[in-house]
Amino acid sequence: MEENRDEYFMRQALFEAKEAYDRDEIPVGVVIVYKDRIIARGHNLTETLNDVTAHAEMQAITSAAGVLGGKYLIGCTVYVTLEPCIMCAGALGWSQISRIVYGAADDKRGFQKFAPKALHPKTEIQGGVLQEDCARLMQDFFRNKR
Amino acid sequence: MEENRDEYFMRQALFEAKEAYDRDEIPVGVVIVYKDRIIARGHNLTETLNDVTAHAEMQAITSAAGVLGGKYLIGCTVYVTLEPCIMCAGALGWSQISRIVYGAADDKRGFQKFAPKALHPKTEIQGGVLQEDCARLMQDFFRNKR
Repeated sequence: MEENRDEYFMRQALFEAKEAYDRDEIPVGVVIVYKDRIIARGHNLTETLNDVTAHAEMQAITSAAGVLGGKYLIGCTVYVTLEPCIMCAGALGWSQISRIVYGAADDKRGFQKFAPKALHPKTEIQGGVLQEDCARLMQDFFRNKR
Repeated sequence: MEENRDEYFMRQALFEAKEAYDRDEIPVGVVIVYKDRIIARGHNLTETLNDVTAHAEMQAITSAAGVLGGKYLIGCTVYVTLEPCIMCAGALGWSQISRIVYGAADDKRGFQKFAPKALHPKTEIQGGVLQEDCARLMQDFFRNKR
């Protein structure tokens, strides 16, 4: 059941990523889940907002904290279609979020290679959920850019 | 002259840090300078905004991009009273900012130890400007917290 629930929420993150794709943004999407409910959603808006900090995760962290009424996301899981970058991993580290589930790995920009200690020591990480769907969306995006 | 100019702008960042201090926020302040003019200022607001992403640098990056009308901060220098954390260094990396000048080092959370490749390869880094003033403000803050 755990795996199916993860896939369900990752599909929601993929919906968000497709929203980004349709806006000509690098297609990364996120949902944050607390007690089995989605409390925040987001997709990459760096071009639309002219702002390098407008990654999907950053927006969703801010939004989830607003919903919970506190800045720590203990008890929450973030589902993100791409392995977080250094910036987003640093933010997730400050948030003390309990679990990070990502789809596709990011060998060029992912935090696991460049900032492996960014997270809170108690945070669990799981990669590869709906990996192919998440990676294909990125590949389609960059193929159309060429 | 270069050193004096750096000290002048770091004093401006210190004014911002004192604003944070007066709000009972960890006292970190920032200014971003382009062509010898301050185009963005910010101080830590994580408690006030209930948001771990509300570091001084993050706000100032967003603000400076708005002033310049583009998301890249090439040609800009950021003056920050404390060595940036992993999150902020990741954001500064995405921004391709040309120069980072900081005051006090942060051995526990600073990016140079935990994410040394966070920045754009062309970004210059200089630490230690008004280091004592910057560090003293932090020490005063945490002493009062005990």
